[in-house]
Amino acid sequence: MSVLQGATTAIAVEPIAPIQPVRIINLAQVELGKKLFFDPRLSLSGHISCSSCHNLSLGGVDNMQFSIGHIWRMGNINTPTVLNSSLNLAQFWNGRAADLKEQAEGPISNPIEMASNHVLAVQVIQTIPGYVAEFRQVFGSKKITMDRVTSAIAEFEKILITPNSRFDQWLLGNESAITDYELSGYQIFKVSGCVACHNGPGVGGQSFQKLGIKAKYETDHPARGKADVTGKKSDINVFKVPLLRNIELTFPYFHDGQVATLEAAVDTMASVQRGLTFTRDENARVVAFLKTLTGDQPSFNIPVLPPSGPDTPRPQTFYSDGS
Amino acid sequence: MSVLQGATTAIAVEPIAPIQPVRIINLAQVELGKKLFFDPRLSLSGHISCSSCHNLSLGGVDNMQFSIGHIWRMGNINTPTVLNSSLNLAQFWNGRAADLKEQAEGPISNPIEMASNHVLAVQVIQTIPGYVAEFRQVFGSKKITMDRVTSAIAEFEKILITPNSRFDQWLLGNESAITDYELSGYQIFKVSGCVACHNGPGVGGQSFQKLGIKAKYETDHPARGKADVTGKKSDINVFKVPLLRNIELTFPYFHDGQVATLEAAVDTMASVQRGLTFTRDENARVVAFLKTLTGDQPSFNIPVLPPSGPDTPRPQTFYSDGS
Repeated sequence: MSVLQGATTAIAVEPIAPIQPVRIINLAQVELGKKLFFDPRLSLSGHISCSSCHNLSLGGVDNMQFSIGHIWRMGNINTPTVLNSSLNLAQFWNGRAADLKEQAEGPISNPIEMASNHVLAVQVIQTIPGYVAEFRQVFGSKKITMDRVTSAIAEFEKILITPNSRFDQWLLGNESAITDYELSGYQIFKVSGCVACHNGPGVGGQSFQKLGIKAKYETDHPARGKADVTGKKSDINVFKVPLLRNIELTFPYFHDGQVATLEAAVDTMASVQRGLTFTRDENARVVAFLKTLTGDQPSFNIPVLPPSGPDTPRPQTFYSDGS
Repeated sequence: MSVLQGATTAIAVEPIAPIQPVRIINLAQVELGKKLFFDPRLSLSGHISCSSCHNLSLGGVDNMQFSIGHIWRMGNINTPTVLNSSLNLAQFWNGRAADLKEQAEGPISNPIEMASNHVLAVQVIQTIPGYVAEFRQVFGSKKITMDRVTSAIAEFEKILITPNSRFDQWLLGNESAITDYELSGYQIFKVSGCVACHNGPGVGGQSFQKLGIKAKYETDHPARGKADVTGKKSDINVFKVPLLRNIELTFPYFHDGQVATLEAAVDTMASVQRGLTFTRDENARVVAFLKTLTGDQPSFNIPVLPPSGPDTPRPQTFYSDGS
């Protein structure tokens, strides 16, 4: 009784909450969505899948400043992690997609990402016999649409949460799960006001905030955040607060990917958002705390993809001049 | 007694043998090698891993005529499957690598593939704390060398066999594992002489043979096979006989990747190697037989890769002009 009570109390008083286990999912859609997430045939070249940039072996990112897209084109913003992305109030840095399903539509047809289009992507799937059978089983009819494709991908992405971090174990009552040093970093994180935005189960992802409240965030990057969606002057440099879950793995940092290390990212945020300068010791303690947010990484078998059929459009990998 | 006897007899009289289960392996090296196989940081760009071209969700290939390499450079020969590659007498189409370990050295430093070099690749691994600890555990000392890297990758590749195909079940005595139609395709395959080269557990991979014995193999592709290694005139167009295991999955076909379908590949081989013209019915039966060679695909959890350290060389993804 007292252990449970202690755990409940801890959850109640802390601004960060443990990641909840996945409860109701459509397992058939998850299994189909996993295949689609890993299938490079959704791209024009046959080379790029969702997992190319959202590498589940690397914290759901590619650890690059900007990702590599079709014919090695350069992405225009740092790739956010797909891990725990179901905990975001909206998707993309500027929140232009309401949910994971809407997000999944974007990269498939983006010319600097997968460079296909929704008609071609559906045609590819419709001509792969194994997918035709699986869509029929999963959705109850043979219709294959982008709506069903993105529904399945989004359902798979729901299982990409990372529970059981040492910090969550501590929140749930295991006092020895983090060290006193790490705990002191959490105290600094709280009293410095970081938890005003980085809170909840995602340690972020629950609001849009201006980047550069106390000092200008110096960058040459053209993104203006939410203003690029709304056109409002007041939304300039307003970005979705990123999740800090697994932040140790998702370098480099910020929408422009210009900050390579967690140490530098902490100093930057203290300065531009809170007007604070951390000592080396304070910085190290906050970084140590942030590393306790790394949770269990997704664990599942690599999917086996159904082979193309005779009518499946061939990948357009290289142009006729070999470029 | 009679069932075992029947199975033994079947194995004894057929030129194709079942894939043997993996027996002695160094499991610690396998687990390390799996990580290295999936780690894009072995490439200069941080984008390309062994699994990019040898996609284990797609039969160990990328289903492209030529693979995509560093800065979208085009490969110069069709990527052979990594599945069952331990059953080959040598590696690469022209056999220039004696074994899997020697093969693994090649792509890492090939400028049209991963475009790194052995010094840089070792430096990357040496600066990733998780790898340093794992090498010490696996090899008993902290030394990280390309020799140890390729040893681990090769050990992982040994487990990438595909046993339990329907044809192997039939070889092992389960008479209902393949249909009469598929069995008739196998009879055609045998009486046509295909088994002279496509035999053993790999259904190939055991000899070098001239491509174009009965008729010229028409291609614009510059590869001259073994002659590119030995310089001997008699080795022109002599290639390692490819494995036919999982051949349904490893399209397109031939070293130049110019044949898209299994039906066309069967007709081409009948013609250029045996001087035969199959009827549509014979072709369909042989294709049906070949599809019974698809075995259990490798099944394991996606690896979780250790994060880079502060001194890990950054990926050189784009050149300074953004190209």
